[in-house]
Amino acid sequence: MTMAMASMKGENVTVSAAAAPRMKKLASMLCMKGGNGDGSYLNNSQAQALHARRMLHFLEETLDAMMERSSSDKLFTAADLGCSCGSNSLFIVDVIVRRVSEAYESRGRDAPEFQVFFSDLPSNDFNTLFQLLPPLLAPVAGSLEECLAAGEGAATATRPYHAAGVPGTFYGRLFPGESIDVFTSTFSLHWLSQVPEEVGDSASPAYNGGRVFVHRATEAVAAAYKRQFQADLARFLRSRAREMKRGGAMFLACLGRSSGDPADQGGAGLLFGTHFQDAWDDLVQEGVVEGEKRDSFNIPVYAPSLQEFRDVVRADGAFAIDRLELVRGGSPLVVDRPDDAAEVGRAMANSCKAVAGVLVDAHIGERRGAQLFERLERRAARHARELVEKMHFFHVVCSLSLAP
Amino acid sequence: MTMAMASMKGENVTVSAAAAPRMKKLASMLCMKGGNGDGSYLNNSQAQALHARRMLHFLEETLDAMMERSSSDKLFTAADLGCSCGSNSLFIVDVIVRRVSEAYESRGRDAPEFQVFFSDLPSNDFNTLFQLLPPLLAPVAGSLEECLAAGEGAATATRPYHAAGVPGTFYGRLFPGESIDVFTSTFSLHWLSQVPEEVGDSASPAYNGGRVFVHRATEAVAAAYKRQFQADLARFLRSRAREMKRGGAMFLACLGRSSGDPADQGGAGLLFGTHFQDAWDDLVQEGVVEGEKRDSFNIPVYAPSLQEFRDVVRADGAFAIDRLELVRGGSPLVVDRPDDAAEVGRAMANSCKAVAGVLVDAHIGERRGAQLFERLERRAARHARELVEKMHFFHVVCSLSLAP
Repeated sequence: MTMAMASMKGENVTVSAAAAPRMKKLASMLCMKGGNGDGSYLNNSQAQALHARRMLHFLEETLDAMMERSSSDKLFTAADLGCSCGSNSLFIVDVIVRRVSEAYESRGRDAPEFQVFFSDLPSNDFNTLFQLLPPLLAPVAGSLEECLAAGEGAATATRPYHAAGVPGTFYGRLFPGESIDVFTSTFSLHWLSQVPEEVGDSASPAYNGGRVFVHRATEAVAAAYKRQFQADLARFLRSRAREMKRGGAMFLACLGRSSGDPADQGGAGLLFGTHFQDAWDDLVQEGVVEGEKRDSFNIPVYAPSLQEFRDVVRADGAFAIDRLELVRGGSPLVVDRPDDAAEVGRAMANSCKAVAGVLVDAHIGERRGAQLFERLERRAARHARELVEKMHFFHVVCSLSLAP
Repeated sequence: MTMAMASMKGENVTVSAAAAPRMKKLASMLCMKGGNGDGSYLNNSQAQALHARRMLHFLEETLDAMMERSSSDKLFTAADLGCSCGSNSLFIVDVIVRRVSEAYESRGRDAPEFQVFFSDLPSNDFNTLFQLLPPLLAPVAGSLEECLAAGEGAATATRPYHAAGVPGTFYGRLFPGESIDVFTSTFSLHWLSQVPEEVGDSASPAYNGGRVFVHRATEAVAAAYKRQFQADLARFLRSRAREMKRGGAMFLACLGRSSGDPADQGGAGLLFGTHFQDAWDDLVQEGVVEGEKRDSFNIPVYAPSLQEFRDVVRADGAFAIDRLELVRGGSPLVVDRPDDAAEVGRAMANSCKAVAGVLVDAHIGERRGAQLFERLERRAARHARELVEKMHFFHVVCSLSLAP
């Protein structure tokens, strides 16, 4: 089981803060198999598998509760928000289709037709996603059940659902009113819709001069990031509440943090707020990048605490919280030999690049971007042992249903 | 008003017969404006504009008749099949949304929410299409009407509908049952799902040895092409009948021919069955391409007669024919100076390349493909006057509704 960050860059990516490739973590773990054997990775892969199974269990629990509540329509619609280019999204959709079909079957009803929407920003590489889709299962009577009964192999060889791609931001409306039975969004909601304006405004007390992320920033900066996250999540919930069918459900997972302090971003802080920060400072001191250039760069990511997340859901009021937990996840660093400092350094640079490379290149160009990640690699290698020990993510995992 | 073929090649095109870029004609005329003044094009642009307006009128008539029949739901769904990378499709969708909104308004009802599906093969460049989409109009009460009232400029600046891309072949199922109000497909249905098998089988009496298109081919070849077209259209209609909502409608336009003889393909015949054919023969005689290589290449396009089209719709039986006409269209050749033989030759080669270039390159490679189109350009230049006079398309235009 690999710990890889699954973010991919499309060929035609239009660069903007909101268009950055998504951080993907659990989802990629969930659908990857094999690897180089137990203990070959930085963290214990068995512990990882446990976490992954636990989160998958949450999703299934969400679906089961929904099937208890809802009537059995002839059409079941699902939407995965922040689908990226695909394989993780396809795995989650397979879980949904299988579980819902089983629920229909256990009530002695014919399985519904499924329609699945894969949504992401217009800059996402939908072409790759669409070419990953297996061919549609011929809608012959009984064949859906046969396919599901045949297990995973068959389920990925054909596709027992109608598929569609939906370009747009999930911080606004994406679907007609009351049209979706189940929403999922895994590892996208920690991406803010934008860097908070005050944070880039040198006249503001929340100006994040000198720093490139909220981690270890001032109280005013931290408050601005928190406000942005909560405003974005509120807009997300307001749109979904309009789009969800009566009896529908939503499964959300995103980066989270265990600390109450917004300026202590945990794993995300270690990723963007320490050696990555120092690498920027290196470039400024070497005269490669001007100080103002660094000051105007900020990573639009925020790992919320459970409380911050819960407050937004409650204030919105449209959804009941069926489950809300902070789950300890793994490390984004993929290494075969955790004792090899050079390899750890490379893994750290690669992880950062996979997530923030597009943003960095758009801000200072590819050439200086490459220099930045070289500095990062060198610095991370010098702190390899500490990174191996301390680098891991927490995830907010949340199951919601429309409040009665 | 330009006569350009609007086919575009996506960057990640997976080549297969069915994945060839679509022939686009009317749709591009409909949404193009300006040009280099009256009479600057090969054909009289005013006559073209008349044809275009007439076909647009058919679409509006189809919509009006549908609005008479159907109840006013809160959600109106449209699907454009064979959307290619977009601008033509976006224009047609704008017409639909505007017309349907006006119909609701004239009955004193609130405009519905619109959901529009853009469908094409998985190899289509959906990324380009999605980046052409204007941003979603904020669903504020009254703003849809304001937008529509503001006319074309506003309608293209924002998007008063939810959009989704659907990858798949329209010769099979694409959507859930009874989920679409109106289908459109413009200039795609003349693409066969495949070259008829017999045509590529040297042991068959319908083997098309020596030729690369059905035009001027043997009776057996012509019959095989005709069978393939009719079988494909039947599969198209069967799927749409399942997917269309009660009271729904369908507007179809594709290449057609005025001759009763399937081996006389009219404009398509002139495009693929004369100088293009001779250019292949040149390469064979020069030893650049082996005879068998040419013999195994066939263009999977078929321009049906009205009667052939009508027979399939009647045999299927699910749809009533509200209108079925053969409309004289324009020429695919874009030239500023019709007297300039070299320019006419270039235009002919470009038109052929835009439609069949991907297929040719997949069959004999890019280098020899370029040689083929060079020969074509030279030959077409020698027959420039004849091409200017005789090259024009006919279009089958068809409006269908679910039979009661």
